[in-house]
Formats: sequence, structure tokens, C-alpha cells
Amino acid sequence: MKEIKDKSVEIFLDELASKQATPGGGSAAAVMGAQAAALVSMVCNLTIGKPKYAEVEAELRDLLGEAEVLRQTLLGMVKADVDVFDKLMACYGLSKTNEQEKLYRGEQIQTVLKEATLVPLACAKACAQAIELSRTAAEKGNLGVISDAGVAVMAAYAGLKSAALNVQINAAGLKDRTFAEAQLAELDGLLELAENAAAQVYQTVKDKL
Amino acid sequence: MKEIKDKSVEIFLDELASKQATPGGGSAAAVMGAQAAALVSMVCNLTIGKPKYAEVEAELRDLLGEAEVLRQTLLGMVKADVDVFDKLMACYGLSKTNEQEKLYRGEQIQTVLKEATLVPLACAKACAQAIELSRTAAEKGNLGVISDAGVAVMAAYAGLKSAALNVQINAAGLKDRTFAEAQLAELDGLLELAENAAAQVYQTVKDKL
Repeated sequence: MKEIKDKSVEIFLDELASKQATPGGGSAAAVMGAQAAALVSMVCNLTIGKPKYAEVEAELRDLLGEAEVLRQTLLGMVKADVDVFDKLMACYGLSKTNEQEKLYRGEQIQTVLKEATLVPLACAKACAQAIELSRTAAEKGNLGVISDAGVAVMAAYAGLKSAALNVQINAAGLKDRTFAEAQLAELDGLLELAENAAAQVYQTVKDKL
Repeated sequence: MKEIKDKSVEIFLDELASKQATPGGGSAAAVMGAQAAALVSMVCNLTIGKPKYAEVEAELRDLLGEAEVLRQTLLGMVKADVDVFDKLMACYGLSKTNEQEKLYRGEQIQTVLKEATLVPLACAKACAQAIELSRTAAEKGNLGVISDAGVAVMAAYAGLKSAALNVQINAAGLKDRTFAEAQLAELDGLLELAENAAAQVYQTVKDKL
């Protein structure tokens, strides 16, 4: 069975559209984040080595390194989302013909729901980082490709807001409210910062067009 | 030479990140729009046929039809963006050793710049339509997959804001200001409507989580 990353863009979209539960919005969020990271890399790759941008070259080399690591992280999250969702569905499918089975099933669901909260939270964090990387790309990158930094920030923002929905939906099902509230508080912090950051970076790009 | 849609997700991202000018933000915008349309289809496919949602079934069948057409349109725009950009680069590469060549080159650039303004404008329109389709998915779709309608609206919104940057950057280079201003006015109309629409649809989803 091929991983999503190894399937064609068209087949990925076919599978997203299908009545199969995975891949779904969680994988789409990770792909958007990965597109953001890739576009930050593109801006770096088209800035590094140009005499006009020699002053920012060292900084953009570092940015490129960070964006490439982040892209791999986000690409891995495309699969992580499918895996945890499939695991959760398997738990819901566990037998519940007696009290012992019901108890076991309930415990298993709760354990995997925690994981299913942490996986999109990690994606949200990665997308928030992509917004910050796109800020440097927008501020320092080659003006000829600055619009790509603007696309990067919008993709990262959409990925974050999308992953957030999956954190919220899974956290809602958790009985361990202390754990759930802690993750939701962390998410709220990310969303609050990102809302302004994304608008600022987009405006930075628009002002340079 | 394979079209982007036939390349793996990973290779598409590698090429997006590379120092090659295409694919770039324009193709990424179209992919985001196509992801939005695919997720609307997913919500439809997981709602149609369920007795609980029999009342909205006819409406969601229509929505599915529209989303599938839109997805194909947006997938075609991934290639259209690359093609028009390559065409523009070819014009910039035209010889300009004498006045006649310079005149011809200038005219060719202006002709292709118009096309390079219309291609992302069409993508922006398609993404605005995807926002409207995600609204119906959010309002009428299966509650169990309602978060996917939220991801759809964010992907469509990011696609629209991304395509907008490419309209603006290419319109800025046009000498035919009447043409340019007409396209920019149309774009502004789309952006104004979409800003509220996207926020509303996202909120509709959040309220249902």
C-alpha cells in the first residue's frame, strides 16, 4: 500500500474526495503546511547566490535549512493523520458484548483519542512555525518571487486553522479534561499569535508587489 | 514530461521548493483550491445515502456534481499557471538588439501578461466558488465529517488570497490600464465577499463541533 506522499497529486485528490474516511482534512492540513514550507524554500533558493542579496544570504541559508526540515516533518504528518485515524476507527470497532469488553473498548478509545489530539496539535505547531519562516522569506527574500512568500503564509495559516478543527473535535471526546484543556490552551495560544502574524506577513508581501 | 497532477505529492513539493521558477505559488494556489473541492466532495460522499440525511440528499448530490467539476477545473489550473509563466519567461528572453525587436518583444510581453493576469483571476474565481460550496457542505453535511467542510473553506480561502497576489503582480506590469483596472476591480469584489464568507463558514463548522 503506497503512502500518500508517493501517490500522484490527482490520486491524492481522488482519495480525499472519496467516501473513504482517510485521507481527510487532517492530511489536507499537513499537505498545505508542507506546501508552505516548500514555497519558503523556493524563495530561499531563488535568493541565495544572487549578488544583490549577498547581505541576507547567510540568513536565508539558515532559513532554507529550517524550511526543508519542516517540510519533511509536515510530509510525515500526512501519514501520521491517516494512521491515528485508522487506529481510532479500529478502537470504535472493538467488540462490546459484555461489561469487560465495553470497559476495555472505552479505555482504548480514550488512549487513542489522546494521540488523535496530539497529532493535529503537532501539525498546528508546525504550521505556526511555517508562518514564522514565511515572515523571514517575505522580509528578506528576492523581490522577484516575493508573492511566493505570500502564498506560503496563506497555505500555512490554512493548515493551522484546519489542524485546529481536528484538535478541537478530538479533545471534545476526551474524558481526561485536564489533558484536553492543556492541549486546547496550547492551541489557542498558537491561533492567537498566528492570526496577527499571518495578516502581517501577507501585508508585507502586498506592500512589496 | 509529466504534468504536475501526475507526479507524486512528494515530487510536486520538491519541485515547488526548487530553484526552478515553476511550479510556484500559482500552482500551489490551484492545488489548495482543488483540495477544497475534494473535501466538499468527501463531505457529500459521506452524507449521501445515510437515512439520517435523506432530507438533504438531493441537494448534496447537486453539490457533489458541482464540486467534482470544480475540482477538475482547478486541477487544470495547476498546469495553466505553469504554462503561462513559462510563456511569459520566453517573451522576456526574446532578442532586443534593435528597435524593431524591442518593440516586438514589448508587445509580446504585454499580450502574455494579460493572459498571466487572467489565469490566476480564473483561479481566484474558482476558489471563491469553492468557498460557497463549502458553505453548503458545512450547513447540510454529515455532522461526523463537518470538520472537513471547515478544512475545505480554509483551503479555498488560502487559494483565493494566493491567486490574488499573482493577479496583482501581473496586472501591475500591464500598460493597458483599462484592462488591468477591470481585472483588479473584479478581484477586489471576490476578495471582499470571500473574506466574510470564509469566516462565516468556518464559524458554522466550529459551532457544530
